[in-house]
This record gives sequence, C-alpha cells and structure tokens, in this order.
Amino acid sequence: MCTTAKDLSIIEPRIGTLVRDLTDAPDTGEVAAALRPVMDDVIQQAVTSSQGGKRLRALLSLDAFDVLTEQHHVNSSRNAMIDLACAIEVFQTAALVHDDIIDESDLRRGKPSAHRALEYAVHNASIGRGLGLMLGDILATECIEIARRAAKQLSNSDAIIESFLTMQREVEIGQVLDLGVEMTPLSNPQALVQASLNVFRWKTASYTTIAPLLFALLAAGVDPQDARREALAVGEPLGLAFQLADDLLDVIGSSRNTGKPVGGDIREGKRTVLLADALNAANVSDRDELRAMFEAEHRDETQVGRVITLFERTGAIDQSRARISILWSQSRQAIEQWHLSEDGRRRLIEACARFIPSDLR
Amino acid sequence: MCTTAKDLSIIEPRIGTLVRDLTDAPDTGEVAAALRPVMDDVIQQAVTSSQGGKRLRALLSLDAFDVLTEQHHVNSSRNAMIDLACAIEVFQTAALVHDDIIDESDLRRGKPSAHRALEYAVHNASIGRGLGLMLGDILATECIEIARRAAKQLSNSDAIIESFLTMQREVEIGQVLDLGVEMTPLSNPQALVQASLNVFRWKTASYTTIAPLLFALLAAGVDPQDARREALAVGEPLGLAFQLADDLLDVIGSSRNTGKPVGGDIREGKRTVLLADALNAANVSDRDELRAMFEAEHRDETQVGRVITLFERTGAIDQSRARISILWSQSRQAIEQWHLSEDGRRRLIEACARFIPSDLR
Repeated sequence: MCTTAKDLSIIEPRIGTLVRDLTDAPDTGEVAAALRPVMDDVIQQAVTSSQGGKRLRALLSLDAFDVLTEQHHVNSSRNAMIDLACAIEVFQTAALVHDDIIDESDLRRGKPSAHRALEYAVHNASIGRGLGLMLGDILATECIEIARRAAKQLSNSDAIIESFLTMQREVEIGQVLDLGVEMTPLSNPQALVQASLNVFRWKTASYTTIAPLLFALLAAGVDPQDARREALAVGEPLGLAFQLADDLLDVIGSSRNTGKPVGGDIREGKRTVLLADALNAANVSDRDELRAMFEAEHRDETQVGRVITLFERTGAIDQSRARISILWSQSRQAIEQWHLSEDGRRRLIEACARFIPSDLR
Repeated sequence: MCTTAKDLSIIEPRIGTLVRDLTDAPDTGEVAAALRPVMDDVIQQAVTSSQGGKRLRALLSLDAFDVLTEQHHVNSSRNAMIDLACAIEVFQTAALVHDDIIDESDLRRGKPSAHRALEYAVHNASIGRGLGLMLGDILATECIEIARRAAKQLSNSDAIIESFLTMQREVEIGQVLDLGVEMTPLSNPQALVQASLNVFRWKTASYTTIAPLLFALLAAGVDPQDARREALAVGEPLGLAFQLADDLLDVIGSSRNTGKPVGGDIREGKRTVLLADALNAANVSDRDELRAMFEAEHRDETQVGRVITLFERTGAIDQSRARISILWSQSRQAIEQWHLSEDGRRRLIEACARFIPSDLR
C-alpha cells in the first residue's frame, strides 16, 4: 500500500513531464526557428499553471484503484492508472485557464493567471490573452491524449476514454449553467437553490469525485454499467458536499489555508446555495436588503460583513452544515454497497473524507 | 459512386443532428428547469455556427475513402465514415468560435460570430462572451466523441482516435504560432516567409487536407505508418497551396464568392507570405514604405491599394502563383504513389483540385 505522500511525490513530477511533452508541437512536423520563443512561452506557462494543486482528484482515483485491485486481486497497471489520474489534474488546469479568462481573474493559486502571465511574457495584452485561450485548448486536448494512452494499458479501455470525454463535456456544461445562474433572478430563491445545486453536480462533482471513482472502477475491471452506478452513488453526494463546504468556508473562514480571503464569493456577488437559502428563510426586510446588496455592482467590506450576519441569522449557514452532513452520510452509505473488506472500506472512506473538513462531516 | 451534391445533402443535416445532440448535457444527469434557457441558447448557437461551411474537408475525406475502399475491395462502414468526416467539420467550427474571440471578430460567414450572437441572446456582454468561449470548448470535446463513436465501426479505430487528437493539437499549435507571427518583426522577411509557411502547415494543412486523407486511409485499412506518410505527402503541399491561394485571392479578388472584400488581410495588417515575399524582393524605398504601412495601427483604402500595387510590382503575386503551382504539382505527384486505378486517381485528383481555383493550379 502506498502512502499519500509517496503518491504525491510520483504524481507531481509526472504531471510536469506529461504537460511539457504534450503541450509542445507533436513530432509530425517542425516548428520554425523564429516561432520557437512563443511556443516555449506557452509550454513554460503550461507547466507553471499545472503546479500547486492539492491533487485531491488524482489521489482519490489512485486510492480507490488500490482498494479495488487488492480486493478483486486484479492485476492492472498502476503506472497507467497514475497517468490517468494525472489526466484529471491536467483537465482541471485546462478548465481553470479558461475560467480565469471568463472571470477576468488576475490571480490563480497566488500567481498570475495563465492569460495574464502570457500577456506579461509577450508584452502584448491581446496576443497574450489569445495565447491564454489557446493554452486552455491545448491542455484540454492533451489530457484526453494522456487518458487515451493510459487507457490502452487498463481494463475497459474504451469505456475509460468515453467516460473521460463525458466528464469533460459535463464540466463544460457546468460552466455554461454556472453563467446561467449568474443571470437567474433573486426573486425565486427556491429555483436558485435547485439551479446552484445543479451547477455543483455538473461543474464540480463530475470531475472532482464521480469521474475519479469511475475511472478506478473501470480500470479495476468492474462492468461499465455497474461502475457508472456505483461511482455516481458515492461521488455525486460527495462532490456536492465538497462544493458546499468550499462555499461555506469562504464565509465562515477555515483553518485550512485556502489562499482566499473570507467573504470573497460575497464580494464578487456569487449566487451560492447559501445566498439562496438565506433569501428563502429571510423575513421581508432582510430579503430586500440581501437582494439590494447582491443586485448592486459592488459590495464594500461593511456590506460583506452584513451579508455574513444575515447568512447566520437566517439559518443559512446551519442549513449548509446540515446539507453537507446529510450528503456525506449518503456518500458513506453508498460506499457500503461496494462490498469491500473492512480495511478496504476504511481506506476508501478516508480517501473520500479528504474532500470535507472534519468539523463539517 | 456518390455525387458531391448527394454527399452534401447527407453531411449537412447529419452535422446538425450530431451537434444538437452532443452540445446538450449528456444523459448522465438532469439540467435544472431554471437553467434550461441558457442551455438552449448555447445549443441553438452551436447549430447556427455549424451551418454554412463548404464542407471541403468532409468531402475530401469521403471521396478518398470511396476511392480507397473500392480499390482495395474493403467493406468498411460508409455511414461511420460520414460521421468521422462530420467530426472534422465540427472541429473546424470549434476552432473558428475561439478564433473569432481571439480576433474580436463580429462576423463569421456573414452572420454574427458565436460570442457576439450569444451576447445578443443573453443581453449581457461578459456572460455572452463567456458562453461563446465555452461553446468552443464544448464543440472541441464533442467532435472527439463523434470521432470516437465513428472509429469504433472502422478499421484502425485506435489509430483514428489518436490521429484525430493529433490533428486537434496541431491546429491549436498552429494558432499559437499564428499569434507568434503577428509579433515577428518585418526586418527579416526570409524568417517571415519560413514562419508563415510553418503556420500554414500547422494551422491549415493539418486539418484541411492531411487529416481528411489520413482518416480515409486508416478507415480503408491501410497500415497506420504508411497511411501517415501517404497522407502527409499529398496533404501537406495541397494544404499549403490552399492557404496560399486563399491569401492570394484576398488580394487579387476571385470569381468565387468568398464573402470577403478584397484586401481584407492587408487592412487587418496580417503578416502573409505575400507580404514577406514583397519585402524580400522590394528595393529599399518600397520596403520602407511597406514596413511603415504594416507597422502602423491601421491602413486606409488608399494604402490598401498601394500595398496591392507593391505586391504586384515586387513580383510577390507572381511568386505566390508559382508557389501554388509547384505545390499542386507535388501533391499530384504524391497521388501517383498511392497505386490507384486510372479512375481512382482521376477521382482523387478531382477531390483535391477543389482546394485550388482552376486558374491557379
């Protein structure tokens, strides 16, 4: 059995190597000497943008794979599974690069976002931005190539590629729906709750928990139909709980260093489940106050504090805690159906628990 | 044998159906009712953006497939080959959607570009733009899924998916290099010629001629290594000639209705092979005049006319004609190596000839 620290020490450099190789032009042709510098800028940025993730998704996939292959005495290539796990992380980087362009974010993981860094590198805003957009495209294609190569050495290889593409489409749909939520009027909080949870399923649970579990099940030789059902049963509530916890920590703060200041989502006017729950439960005057603050262009520090007070007073924060706790218990119950050994179950629960801070489980 | 008109009448609605189905959320989950409208806007735009292409790439792939399967008496699924040919067209749409965002183009094929149309649809510039970016991402993923499903019913299915991903990466690299050319100084015209031709290979020849031929060869059961060599030998010169002809027609005008006004590339200040050839051959005063005009932010109508005069006088236009003619003859010679019947060779040459106006061949 491998430790998390050991796995991380394998995953991290492996992502670097894969990204460096596959962001470069394929060996089907040459790159003209005059154009080598711009190509190198993009490769360097691909590597930089790929660094600094917590690798939760890759670790979940690997841990589930280890549990399943030991349990079923399957002899499948762990090396290939590592690459497949890395492909999820590369996909996340691709999605974040485009996300930062859409949100016009200057920073990501404490460093300049990819399109900003490329603007600085080439000293040209519009070309740098274009290179950032293309870097997202390149990473989104190369992660499929990484998955394809890995899948060739694993069970259910065709189902793995299909699932990888489905995961990618799900997240892209999630981004569209997330933009849709930004346009959803605040006058119908119940619809907003449904819409926000729906976005979590597509944009977050898809690639954070469902796909990593699905890839492990498929690679361990589980029948694709069973694998999809089992991955969804455990992964969907877990992924929703993960995103709810992330949004909650943004408001109540965290002992974890998330690198984000408290209240960031409120400052940005993000339409979260917390906001919808608060609007839903608020009295008329609190509701009007919340709506006015969120319909405004900007919110100052005093207003951010006031929103947090209203989130507390309406019970929205307690409701999020309750939602997370219920979802976590649904996910745990679904793990019971996987028919694992006592030790296997314990290890899988441990792997899943990483997605939810212990005081919120 | 199928006629081009008949093939087009199959391809066109098939693209519509595939794009409508695969742009929508996969059936792995539900879309919340409140978010259905934004999803439908994106699907509608995917269908609209997919319309109006000449389908040269799909037709080349199908024609080559017909010639090869008849020649080798291969019994491969023409229906699957049609889908694979459509996947190339869907990929082109994906690339154009992002291209228009990078270039900030308002129009495409005489209609609003995808991101502009989505801005109008949702009455919100930044969200519309974000949806446009995501539409490009969705189309880029779904064309791989179309190719994957098609490849399952064709020979060399794994090599087809691999080649499809390589094609996509090549075009993405081409876009990066194209942005690099925009930053290439005009002081070294020879480097500019090399760089521009290099961009043509990656950005245009890749998916316009090389990949369509390669997919046909693979689907007809040709050994992957031979297929790559043969597709490159015919497709690379043909694709370069196609792009050179396109750039030339932008300057000298065309009997074809390209939908573009004469001199558009010059107006935009595009660094073309024509410009590089002109700078290369110009005397000192003409060269300085050209450089000054192309280093300026904008060029007025008089300057566009003046540039065309200089392109003529320096022999750049004749040189482009000569380049196209040589490349076309290289492509024809490479077709001879395919060992086709007299009839097969004639039909393949006809299919390739569609890429070059007859007076430039």
